[in-house]
Amino acid sequence: MEFSANQIAALVNGTVEGDGDITVNTFAKIEEGHPGALSFLANPKYAHFLYTSKSSVILVSRAFELEQPVGATLIRVDNPYATVAQLMTMVSELTAKRHTGVEEPCHIAPGVDVPADAYVGAFAYIGEGVKLGAGVQIYPQAYIGDGVEISENTIVYAGVRIYPGCRIGAGCVLHSGAVIGADGFGFAPLPDGSYSKIPQLGNVVLEDNVEIGANTTVDRATMGSTRVRKGTKLDNLIQVAHNVEIGENTVMAAQVGVAGSTKVGSNCMVGGQVGFAGHIHVGDRVEIGAQSGIPGNVDSGSRLMGYPAVDARDFMRQTVYVKQLGELVKRVSELEKQLKSK
Amino acid sequence: MEFSANQIAALVNGTVEGDGDITVNTFAKIEEGHPGALSFLANPKYAHFLYTSKSSVILVSRAFELEQPVGATLIRVDNPYATVAQLMTMVSELTAKRHTGVEEPCHIAPGVDVPADAYVGAFAYIGEGVKLGAGVQIYPQAYIGDGVEISENTIVYAGVRIYPGCRIGAGCVLHSGAVIGADGFGFAPLPDGSYSKIPQLGNVVLEDNVEIGANTTVDRATMGSTRVRKGTKLDNLIQVAHNVEIGENTVMAAQVGVAGSTKVGSNCMVGGQVGFAGHIHVGDRVEIGAQSGIPGNVDSGSRLMGYPAVDARDFMRQTVYVKQLGELVKRVSELEKQLKSK
Amino acid sequence: MEFSANQIAALVNGTVEGDGDITVNTFAKIEEGHPGALSFLANPKYAHFLYTSKSSVILVSRAFELEQPVGATLIRVDNPYATVAQLMTMVSELTAKRHTGVEEPCHIAPGVDVPADAYVGAFAYIGEGVKLGAGVQIYPQAYIGDGVEISENTIVYAGVRIYPGCRIGAGCVLHSGAVIGADGFGFAPLPDGSYSKIPQLGNVVLEDNVEIGANTTVDRATMGSTRVRKGTKLDNLIQVAHNVEIGENTVMAAQVGVAGSTKVGSNCMVGGQVGFAGHIHVGDRVEIGAQSGIPGNVDSGSRLMGYPAVDARDFMRQTVYVKQLGELVKRVSELEKQLKSK
Repeated sequence: MEFSANQIAALVNGTVEGDGDITVNTFAKIEEGHPGALSFLANPKYAHFLYTSKSSVILVSRAFELEQPVGATLIRVDNPYATVAQLMTMVSELTAKRHTGVEEPCHIAPGVDVPADAYVGAFAYIGEGVKLGAGVQIYPQAYIGDGVEISENTIVYAGVRIYPGCRIGAGCVLHSGAVIGADGFGFAPLPDGSYSKIPQLGNVVLEDNVEIGANTTVDRATMGSTRVRKGTKLDNLIQVAHNVEIGENTVMAAQVGVAGSTKVGSNCMVGGQVGFAGHIHVGDRVEIGAQSGIPGNVDSGSRLMGYPAVDARDFMRQTVYVKQLGELVKRVSELEKQLKSK
Repeated sequence: MEFSANQIAALVNGTVEGDGDITVNTFAKIEEGHPGALSFLANPKYAHFLYTSKSSVILVSRAFELEQPVGATLIRVDNPYATVAQLMTMVSELTAKRHTGVEEPCHIAPGVDVPADAYVGAFAYIGEGVKLGAGVQIYPQAYIGDGVEISENTIVYAGVRIYPGCRIGAGCVLHSGAVIGADGFGFAPLPDGSYSKIPQLGNVVLEDNVEIGANTTVDRATMGSTRVRKGTKLDNLIQVAHNVEIGENTVMAAQVGVAGSTKVGSNCMVGGQVGFAGHIHVGDRVEIGAQSGIPGNVDSGSRLMGYPAVDARDFMRQTVYVKQLGELVKRVSELEKQLKSK
Repeated sequence: MEFSANQIAALVNGTVEGDGDITVNTFAKIEEGHPGALSFLANPKYAHFLYTSKSSVILVSRAFELEQPVGATLIRVDNPYATVAQLMTMVSELTAKRHTGVEEPCHIAPGVDVPADAYVGAFAYIGEGVKLGAGVQIYPQAYIGDGVEISENTIVYAGVRIYPGCRIGAGCVLHSGAVIGADGFGFAPLPDGSYSKIPQLGNVVLEDNVEIGANTTVDRATMGSTRVRKGTKLDNLIQVAHNVEIGENTVMAAQVGVAGSTKVGSNCMVGGQVGFAGHIHVGDRVEIGAQSGIPGNVDSGSRLMGYPAVDARDFMRQTVYVKQLGELVKRVSELEKQLKSK
């Protein structure tokens, strides 16, 4: 597909500066631009690429002031990032391959109904009593345990495993290797030092529009449900332990770990490799820097960083003080010397 | 299944306080209680829920003193946590679905014997020379490489991969996505800056009653065996590198990493996201706080925390001192000023 | 296979000390030596094992000076580690099982050509338009999405998932559970606090001789390619986010995370559990200690450690200063007391 700058501007309510007839057929990052590509400038850090980018068309903010002439055709819009996302979504919807039907061989337990517009890929396993909503896409080699319910239009990519009894909402995306509903990590110590397994009788509930990254694990509850509320997005390789609850529209970057029974609020933003202790409450709209360790309860609206985590500004100060510790030690030694000589 | 408080008390040698005829048919956490549910109070942090919980029956310690009247029927027992675990195990054994037989299509190499009470799920792959013990359950889409031995009653969940030549003990549980026996990370640098792969000719040995969490990886040894000793429990997304040995009855929380050739002792408790350096010895009964980094050998009985890890009490002190560093810097500046003015 | 010390010495250009006729048929670590095994001494830390090892033959450096008599036959070589790697490679090549042909049932889309010396295991899924090079080995249960290209002699182990459109070079090794090309983590916030997914239209390119560890995830680019350059080795459970580029011959230990759009140079060595912030540039030949957090750009040749990372020597000093903080506080209190009394 090829579009001219004028056509794109019309679609996104933008204003063309330069050759409106120039055409593009793909997207490229501004620093990797090439003829025929559409790029965008959102992060001011990348502004210097605007003047050298080889892209044919570049989306920029209406407010952006040029410091040099630009080779590309510009399209001025209110929010270049939102606009490029909108264009990418349009292209994605035009080009995405939507699978339907059942690929053989696969295993579908007797009595399970596959809606006409759903997809079950080859080597997928659908257990007894599974309920699949309209338009659900189960990719090859996925495993859907007995009694699992998956609501409409959810995508389960190749090799996802969902243990029995879990419930997945509508419009969710589960990436390859995600494991939903494996046993929570619960063991009772015995007098001889060994452990007996505590059965994990609960399940996992993912509400609507949840996205689960590749190889992320969400364990089933000991009793009740481990729950991820609607609109929450989890990146790859994240661990969500048994009986955890994560609120709505919270985003967590890769490799975060949330220990058992912890409740994380809504609209939080969590950096990569962060760890949450178990049995704590984290409020809403909390922002946590990468690699932080959260040892206790957190108030709504907090911005934390560090190990153990403190207010993000305090962490910055601490870091500076620690860097200057050698200097401080010298100052104290000097004081001791001076005082001795007095 | 429904049981009365009197019936449960008889089963677990408890004493009923309140209506002994009230019945329950499920478990619930005390803070999520509802009519018809059995709850328990073990963690004193949750004691206040006792008075408002809607559960019908609650297990409490014989020693626990009520501060208010309670709506639920209480059953007094020595150890509420152990008792609820016992009850859950009973329910789990009554309700668990035990699969047997071979689901087609699956791949079982010629000559491999599947015991009558074992299970091999659809799309599972059993390589040449594999030995399966009585009652072994191989779930769908699992991969069992050539020459692997799995002893009796071990459960291999959907999509587990066991590379050739590994040995898995009896009564083990391997959760979905676990990878046992992938190549250790060994490369020899060449003069041109590239690396040549060092063949990893050893295997992995998991002894009896080991549990391996979802998406955890245990690499094969370069030579000899990477070994996890009996009764040890590893949570999800853990990395165990080549030639590591982990002792008996050690528990590791999610996302721990153990670098190559390190030996961890028995009865250790390791928090989430902890990292162990390679080629170190960690003693028995060691407790390590979450996210700690263990750079060197550790004596038996140590309690460590921090990056790099120190004695846990020292870590707490350090944390306080670091928080007060700004104050300390001010005090030193004040001293310098005073001394100058003298 | 059994070889005498004399035969081995002839193969590796070594010099025998002791009984040249003694034979070995396996490898063992020097501290786990046993009769019939070949061991080696490379790390001086292990030198004391030389005198007690029960191995029949031990490779040692020509320069190594014995402090006691040794029971084993020694073979003197220039570089014992390189020599044992060479011997292991020879054994590995003699004993490795090379699969060829197509195991049924598998899914190979119409029109896909499987070269005569390639292997496609049972339950593998090969999508439309996939291109497979000579000698490619696709193990059971692997998923190769539409339009993927895999060059000659690459090994894709059981249960690897490669999303559509990715390109894998020659001589690569992808271990079980690796996920290549899942969607990058991109979401645009909407005014109501929810997120809309930004389509991830790019792909992943792994160049030649890349090794990807078990359960490691490499996300597809938003636009363009996420790229891992030739000869780079990634251990298990690593996260490589969208639009990341990693240079040639860089090695990363397990559980490292690289956030979006970051560029890491060539010939770097990265310890386990390290995290890289997004949108940063890391130079060539950089060495980073385990668990470090890299918040910003890094010059070539740097050696870093810490959270946030600093020069490795500074980190060591900081660590010592922090340990002595209690002492420093006491010294300052003492100064204050003295000054007050003057």
